[in-house]
Amino acid sequence: MTTQNFRKIVIFGVGLIGGSFALAMRKAEAVGEVVGFGRTKGTLKKALEAGIVDRIGEDVALEVADADLVLLAVPVAQMAEIFANIAPHLGADTLVIDGGSTKSDVVAAARANLGDKIGQFVPAHPIAGAEASGPAAALADLYMGKRVVLTPLPENSNELLIRACAAWEACGMAVSRLTPEQHDEVFAAVSHLPHLLSFALVHDLVQRENHKLLLSFAASGFRDFTRIAASSPEMWRDICMANREPLLRELKLYADELYAMYQVLESGDADKLEEIFQLASDVRGDWSQQ
Amino acid sequence: MTTQNFRKIVIFGVGLIGGSFALAMRKAEAVGEVVGFGRTKGTLKKALEAGIVDRIGEDVALEVADADLVLLAVPVAQMAEIFANIAPHLGADTLVIDGGSTKSDVVAAARANLGDKIGQFVPAHPIAGAEASGPAAALADLYMGKRVVLTPLPENSNELLIRACAAWEACGMAVSRLTPEQHDEVFAAVSHLPHLLSFALVHDLVQRENHKLLLSFAASGFRDFTRIAASSPEMWRDICMANREPLLRELKLYADELYAMYQVLESGDADKLEEIFQLASDVRGDWSQQ
Repeated sequence: MTTQNFRKIVIFGVGLIGGSFALAMRKAEAVGEVVGFGRTKGTLKKALEAGIVDRIGEDVALEVADADLVLLAVPVAQMAEIFANIAPHLGADTLVIDGGSTKSDVVAAARANLGDKIGQFVPAHPIAGAEASGPAAALADLYMGKRVVLTPLPENSNELLIRACAAWEACGMAVSRLTPEQHDEVFAAVSHLPHLLSFALVHDLVQRENHKLLLSFAASGFRDFTRIAASSPEMWRDICMANREPLLRELKLYADELYAMYQVLESGDADKLEEIFQLASDVRGDWSQQ
Repeated sequence: MTTQNFRKIVIFGVGLIGGSFALAMRKAEAVGEVVGFGRTKGTLKKALEAGIVDRIGEDVALEVADADLVLLAVPVAQMAEIFANIAPHLGADTLVIDGGSTKSDVVAAARANLGDKIGQFVPAHPIAGAEASGPAAALADLYMGKRVVLTPLPENSNELLIRACAAWEACGMAVSRLTPEQHDEVFAAVSHLPHLLSFALVHDLVQRENHKLLLSFAASGFRDFTRIAASSPEMWRDICMANREPLLRELKLYADELYAMYQVLESGDADKLEEIFQLASDVRGDWSQQ
């Protein structure tokens, strides 16, 4: 872990995910040089000042040709273009990873654009986030003790998988494996749905004429429930669009659950209501003690 | 504030709400003696050991006759019985307050049971809570810097209102006023609805065969969204039942919001989706900076 495993890392997107990866790899002394690419000069300059990157990249072809590792840490909708840009220039031993929150779409974009380099890409989703974004939000410890889900491709060699695991483990993460489809089903349920529900509650209240009065009485329960409604709208638009089918299925199941609860409440069935709350409370309590 | 305003306080329910009130009044040196009543000897003993009460009450009639202040801090469904028990014995100058999370039902219970002593009751909802309950969860600072909503009755004298305000202010709270109906509408929207939605998400997931796998990948967004699903099932059953009509209206509005979001997602309207997220994110961000 403390040996310099990756001589040169190229990162596309130097915000929360990419920036924290760079800082974590530096802290683990697992990287030589970090080169950053991004959409805006301002963000790249901040990343340079924050010690996230050593250099701002100018020439993608040049930089990825001799990189040990390329990380795509941009919104998932922007990955196809980057795959297309790097494909002709990737070194034969360059490992490509990503930090996207959805996997089926990223794998499809990689297949469509990486050509015969597809085996060099090991898709990943580091399960760590915050409602903040940008280089200023990056933290060396963001990934420490958290899980990363790899969704390996049949074309990945064992040697490459081991290197991908080593990179995420150097950041302090425990590696899990799922298929891209399993991954997207799981995260539609435990992450994308709650985000959508949280955005929906705030949006629902904002429509009211008296929303300022309402919000003035909101307290800690509201605060925690809606924390994720302060997340990046652009990022969550992309995630929801990318994982549309599983998310629509989850929304449907949740709407059914709400309708059942509406009927229990409307009929005044206090025992049934308590039974629902009790089961949820028990499971949530057990979960938080794990 | 530091004078001993209340010589003797009698508290029904020595858990999070009642226990924290007692501890806060003691810290403010605003109380002489605190006497506690409760449903179980075990809870009362814990409250005694935790320094919440000075004595465990034996005789309700005797204790409330010379009390300066009586606090009802039990689930709202149990208040009617306590109002009935104390009504014949209340001293002429005894102020009665409550800490219930709903107000229309508490006021109705008070009117039905307090008889000509109704003017001595000043309904209140201290907006402070935690998912924990019981005397062990009580904190002297629970109310510090928080708001309490009073929903005064036409029968309350100004002198009594001032004493009720003084009690809550001694706990560190800022006093707001609403009618019982306004209160219940506001809290259906910003508190009761989010609790129900949070219980519903956990309950929805628990139904699945693979719920252990799902929960093993749940992260910080899920943790915050579902923190309130670990709340007391009994307390939330009572609150939902007591505030049923406003809560059903809120559930209906939220279901409409979700249906609109479902349609936006199904039609693949990324711009509209981002617009919804952006508005929610802006409002939530502004709110948390207040």
